[in-house]
Amino acid sequence: MNVRILWPGKTRTPAFRELEDFYAKRIRALCPLDIVATAEARGLDERAGEKIKEIEAKGLEKHFKDDYIVCLIDEGRDMSSEEFARFFERRAAGPHKSVTFVVGGFLGLARRILDRADLRMSVSKMTFSHELCRIMLMEQIYRSMSIVKGRAYAK
Amino acid sequence: MNVRILWPGKTRTPAFRELEDFYAKRIRALCPLDIVATAEARGLDERAGEKIKEIEAKGLEKHFKDDYIVCLIDEGRDMSSEEFARFFERRAAGPHKSVTFVVGGFLGLARRILDRADLRMSVSKMTFSHELCRIMLMEQIYRSMSIVKGRAYAK
Repeated sequence: MNVRILWPGKTRTPAFRELEDFYAKRIRALCPLDIVATAEARGLDERAGEKIKEIEAKGLEKHFKDDYIVCLIDEGRDMSSEEFARFFERRAAGPHKSVTFVVGGFLGLARRILDRADLRMSVSKMTFSHELCRIMLMEQIYRSMSIVKGRAYAK
Repeated sequence: MNVRILWPGKTRTPAFRELEDFYAKRIRALCPLDIVATAEARGLDERAGEKIKEIEAKGLEKHFKDDYIVCLIDEGRDMSSEEFARFFERRAAGPHKSVTFVVGGFLGLARRILDRADLRMSVSKMTFSHELCRIMLMEQIYRSMSIVKGRAYAK
């Protein structure tokens, strides 16, 4: 099972970038991981929200392939870490080679990206900055994959 | 309304420490903030879990005063960021001078600390590392306080 993470634009805050590397290294010890910073809308005013989301949607779609797509959104389905581990186990037994997680930019994701998702999930009912969201997602992928691997060893 | 945050032991991972300073600075622009790294159990094996939690409980209790106490725990009450902002507004109108948030160490909090809490809250149904939890809490305090201040200015 490969894990891919897509988000528009590179992580800017140095401390978050450091944590991104920290968790990427740990996840890669458990499964193949691919992180893609897709095209980001630049130089547009925040009031041009729909246009920004549209530009970023195009950048994301280019990388969709035939994967199982999970979009992160506050109102998505919430899971415990244990349930998230079971989610990975079901995916590994399913037809898709990769699970692709999509984290929106600071304005969130365009409607049609959310509509395309096989699953809309939430890591919290609270709204977090998109850079912190990236780290929370990676920590959970690492934690859940560790649970999955632990079970596999225990068998 | 003063905000206090208690947790056992200093944050060790440099990137998390950097984010702690990042959010502390932002929160302090909105309200007085006091962060106390309380006594931490050292040199004990993880199997001595109850003993570790007991030592850390004593360290936390020393700082409790007469505040409104909020303990963070996975199974606590979940709130949206907007609901968290309303929580601060209710506290500001209430009898307590400070709200004190308590975040457990890597083994969590002793039963009697949880029993003492005026509110047990959850920032996610998922389990996060205690150092990441600290950052998530601080980001939410900053976000909710910004909502509260924004409303105050708008009046």
